[in-house]
Amino acid sequence: MVTSVGENTTGLQVGDWVVMVKQQAGTWSTNHNVKVNDVVKIPDHEGLSEVHVATITVNPPTAYNMLTDYVELNAGDWVMQNGANSAVGQAVIQIAAARGLKTLNFVRSRDDIEHLKEQLCGLGATQVLTYEDLNDKSLRDKVKGWLGGKEIHLALNCVGGKETTAMLRYIGKDGHLVSYGAMSKQPFSLPTSAFIFKNLTAHGFWQSRWYLDHSAAEREALMGSLTQLMKKGKFQAPEHEIVSIGKQESDSEATSKIRGIFQKLAAGRYGKKVLLKFEE
Amino acid sequence: MVTSVGENTTGLQVGDWVVMVKQQAGTWSTNHNVKVNDVVKIPDHEGLSEVHVATITVNPPTAYNMLTDYVELNAGDWVMQNGANSAVGQAVIQIAAARGLKTLNFVRSRDDIEHLKEQLCGLGATQVLTYEDLNDKSLRDKVKGWLGGKEIHLALNCVGGKETTAMLRYIGKDGHLVSYGAMSKQPFSLPTSAFIFKNLTAHGFWQSRWYLDHSAAEREALMGSLTQLMKKGKFQAPEHEIVSIGKQESDSEATSKIRGIFQKLAAGRYGKKVLLKFEE
Repeated sequence: MVTSVGENTTGLQVGDWVVMVKQQAGTWSTNHNVKVNDVVKIPDHEGLSEVHVATITVNPPTAYNMLTDYVELNAGDWVMQNGANSAVGQAVIQIAAARGLKTLNFVRSRDDIEHLKEQLCGLGATQVLTYEDLNDKSLRDKVKGWLGGKEIHLALNCVGGKETTAMLRYIGKDGHLVSYGAMSKQPFSLPTSAFIFKNLTAHGFWQSRWYLDHSAAEREALMGSLTQLMKKGKFQAPEHEIVSIGKQESDSEATSKIRGIFQKLAAGRYGKKVLLKFEE
Repeated sequence: MVTSVGENTTGLQVGDWVVMVKQQAGTWSTNHNVKVNDVVKIPDHEGLSEVHVATITVNPPTAYNMLTDYVELNAGDWVMQNGANSAVGQAVIQIAAARGLKTLNFVRSRDDIEHLKEQLCGLGATQVLTYEDLNDKSLRDKVKGWLGGKEIHLALNCVGGKETTAMLRYIGKDGHLVSYGAMSKQPFSLPTSAFIFKNLTAHGFWQSRWYLDHSAAEREALMGSLTQLMKKGKFQAPEHEIVSIGKQESDSEATSKIRGIFQKLAAGRYGKKVLLKFEE
């Protein structure tokens, strides 16, 4: 929340809610003096939760922009993605569903796969498949049936490796592959024929670069689109844990608390976002 | 050469030179009745050799368009490519040189590599390297020196495989990789970091699709740009062999002659273009 603005500052007032879009700017502090251009105003924030707003800066806009910037999509069109249960993947499912788009979602297989499928379908996923399903030759006909004559022109990738190459079998002519992560830590291999005969184009997306390349008005418009979805109940806050740093806590107590969380995060899949709240 | 035009045909006259841009249209015949849209007029053809015109349809426009359609390049800017001694590669070198562009060219190593380097430099190549050179860590500083602070924003690939991945180390921020072939018969592997942090975009180029997507006026303008280069001596005809099919030859004689050539072509690297001439 804006507590004070400098002289000649336009576009922001005391009481406005803002999010920081410059990387690593002021995350670890109660109050911070920032440049106007390092933050984006959250327009019309009444009724939004702190969790919604605290998690709005990176994942939801990544999903939103990838669904907007590369391919013109209309209701009924399909999009596919891997890592579909990632925070961005879940945002893609919800934003796509709100726009009437259909999603073909790929995830790793796991013991509770049916539970995960239910969860993603609850968010609006049209189909959820595992990477193992890609090895099943009967999948081709199934997908063809689902598509009903349509082609998929947008594929989103945060995994890399063979999962991406395999998913690309389902990309249509003039399709676009947008990569925003590499969870598998593997580069991906692309057949030249897809580029030449299907006219595939491959891009990378990075929300930090998007912020640098866009004006304050464009950034605020993006936030407005996302907050509208949140207010309409079409965008759930991600699974999260709020860690409060109390006003009375000493630096060493706070450090120890946060160190414990980082150890858990570093040890493996924490499975939810950790939000720090500095109490005043 | 146009020997007759249908009623209401516009844009072509008897005596015009044309090339066929529809794939496999009429290659094996002395005379052929084609649709206007299946051919492109060679404007202002006086002074051009038949060899120039017979080889103008695919390789020179591929090079020309790849140098034009993806990145705005000005004199002094750099382009890199692998398979630099292919027919398209040589066209890239010559068209780039004519525009004042500098080229970083990669080829397979071979016994007569110095001869090949001389030949490509004779066409206007700025630097010629082998894929083996890419493994040499000192190359990074050498290339840096050549570039003198510039970045390479366009990379052309007809090889695929690891040669392409290795070449991409030298692509700059916001670079474009355009693939038009896969001589190695290997897909290529791209690190996601190049897409995300360097904002790499990867495309495919196919001249046949270009013709389908462009108007008669655009096609003729392209041919005009190429013939101007040829007339100014800035574009050498590729190495070639003209095989004449005499008017007196029987079908079986002609078939046997052509079969012999195909056997040589299929056996390995013929090393030059084969042009058929049907004598009248």
